[in-house]
Amino acid sequence: MVNKDSRIDGSELGLIHLYTGNGKGKTTASIGLGVRAAGQGLKVCMIEFLKGRKDLGEIKIKDRIPNFEIFQFGRENFVFKDKIKREDLEIARRGFDFAKKTIMGGDFDLVILDEVTLAVYFGLIELSSLIELLKSKPKHVEVVLTGRYADPALVEIADLVTEMREIKHPYRKGIGARRGIEY
Amino acid sequence: MVNKDSRIDGSELGLIHLYTGNGKGKTTASIGLGVRAAGQGLKVCMIEFLKGRKDLGEIKIKDRIPNFEIFQFGRENFVFKDKIKREDLEIARRGFDFAKKTIMGGDFDLVILDEVTLAVYFGLIELSSLIELLKSKPKHVEVVLTGRYADPALVEIADLVTEMREIKHPYRKGIGARRGIEY
Repeated sequence: MVNKDSRIDGSELGLIHLYTGNGKGKTTASIGLGVRAAGQGLKVCMIEFLKGRKDLGEIKIKDRIPNFEIFQFGRENFVFKDKIKREDLEIARRGFDFAKKTIMGGDFDLVILDEVTLAVYFGLIELSSLIELLKSKPKHVEVVLTGRYADPALVEIADLVTEMREIKHPYRKGIGARRGIEY
Repeated sequence: MVNKDSRIDGSELGLIHLYTGNGKGKTTASIGLGVRAAGQGLKVCMIEFLKGRKDLGEIKIKDRIPNFEIFQFGRENFVFKDKIKREDLEIARRGFDFAKKTIMGGDFDLVILDEVTLAVYFGLIELSSLIELLKSKPKHVEVVLTGRYADPALVEIADLVTEMREIKHPYRKGIGARRGIEY
């Protein structure tokens, strides 16, 4: 196992973040982090699992932001655990292979694996493969994981973990997803 | 008091968000939200309290993003509660007046008051003035509040509240703020 304490000196990149929990703010925080990093001239690649909608605000604006790329590996509709199809498994596997190539290639400073913990929870990505990837990644690549139901092994391997805890959510009042806010 | 349940139909804007807690992700989530909203063609104004550094990633990139403006009302160095100067009070008051004008003007769809809850906690902004502003704001303006130590009255008035709870933070290992990640 990598000695995490010795692998970074406070200025260089290379940490693993995890944004999990049931509250709003996980994907949005990773977008914000990506935009901030791009603003500092870093190269950012965001890989979205389980999402395929093209009408997301972040997809529409990405080409305006230099050094910020987004790739989606999901169907148009969000996947639910009890409705997983063979197609979902295939797309997730393609996404994971792409994530592996992107991280191991070392060309990106920051790689965001959005909803990856949920994809693991759904059985679409193997936990052991994700951990293996995180352990063997190039030292300088900062990686962000987001999604609900993060396995304790991911909390263990991450350097920075925030739980986004829902205190109040308008979904509870029957307010649906709104353009520009939820997507 | 406004009847919140009747003021929105699920598509229009107008809710109040609060991102608080001691974990990383509050400001970054609000940046992400702002970028997403701008991507959907909404007009976004982010007002940063207690921050004045110009070398932030979000400041450097804002001009590349259409409809996304950021204004800072803080000194170069972050303020600590026991080191508040008269100047901090003056800057925060100017910031709050600006926020009031921006929100009440109704021209922006989304107004982010970054670190405002901390500015209230520091005694730089009056809680009652902030609540008054939130209660009297134009119906269609979505407002985002971020910062630690949010007063319970702000949790009460917000429609969406996420607590960013720190599970692990590299600061604890002595790793300082890194360009592109923390700023």
